[in-house]
Amino acid sequence: MSVSMFDISVPVMKHGLKNLSSLLDKAAAHAAAKKIDPTAYLQARLFPDMLPLTRQVQIACDGAKGAAARLAGVEIPKHEDTEATFADLQARIAKTIDFLNGFKAEQFHNAETREIVLKTPSTTLTFTGLTFLSLYALPNLYFHVTMTYALLRKGGLEIGKRDYLGPIQ
Amino acid sequence: MSVSMFDISVPVMKHGLKNLSSLLDKAAAHAAAKKIDPTAYLQARLFPDMLPLTRQVQIACDGAKGAAARLAGVEIPKHEDTEATFADLQARIAKTIDFLNGFKAEQFHNAETREIVLKTPSTTLTFTGLTFLSLYALPNLYFHVTMTYALLRKGGLEIGKRDYLGPIQ
Repeated sequence: MSVSMFDISVPVMKHGLKNLSSLLDKAAAHAAAKKIDPTAYLQARLFPDMLPLTRQVQIACDGAKGAAARLAGVEIPKHEDTEATFADLQARIAKTIDFLNGFKAEQFHNAETREIVLKTPSTTLTFTGLTFLSLYALPNLYFHVTMTYALLRKGGLEIGKRDYLGPIQ
Repeated sequence: MSVSMFDISVPVMKHGLKNLSSLLDKAAAHAAAKKIDPTAYLQARLFPDMLPLTRQVQIACDGAKGAAARLAGVEIPKHEDTEATFADLQARIAKTIDFLNGFKAEQFHNAETREIVLKTPSTTLTFTGLTFLSLYALPNLYFHVTMTYALLRKGGLEIGKRDYLGPIQ
């Protein structure tokens, strides 16, 4: 017995994005209740040269979209980085989940051995699909979701790790 | 074709722990070079009621140790939470990696359908092995490694996401 590349990628990334969405819902409600300017959260950074919350969410979405597309061997749609409100970020996440919903398990047949080439500003990385997913794409997604969590938690939002992990069954 | 539960758990968690170790090495070197009391990092928290760095590392280790043991159906060794220095934390990580090195792929045969029961202070969670690994254990590990990264980055350490992701091949 073993598991499919689809099962350990698409539903897992959707789960992470839904948890990210729930965190942002709580933040928007908290900001409204406390009369906090939402921008204080959306532009929050842990350190001056780190990326603000809005970018963390955009990158989480792009990472999930790109990972699924690369593993299935389809073109990666371009989503512009224009979000300026919590509602915009929710729409970005919803658009990403819609894209993930379009994949079928059979598109991931042999994805574990598919060659994945990733160009970054400084280098070109070549992975097998399995290495790409397990050592790059998923850790990257969790990095940005956790960073979003950290920014909100540090900003006084009453959330716990269970909000990050989300409902699991 | 498909992938084994061993391949998506033990080597992946070892990779995450090695990256955590490298982050702590950089922090220890930075503290020494800048004459920063290491305790300033070891006890750093993002928010007063969040856990300090030392606990983040201990929990990351315990999560990896527990996940491998549960998936393989073996007893979870107890590691006491006594670490007070960077060297202590490195030893804790090394001990955890040693434990992970003791597993063989065949111990994870059918781990994806194994029933995993997890008692938390507030509830009892029951998962299949695959759900446990992909929606609980791995996201949990990355949460605590990212939180450690965030504490060090916020504390002025010059690290980037590539340090968190580590060398991949």
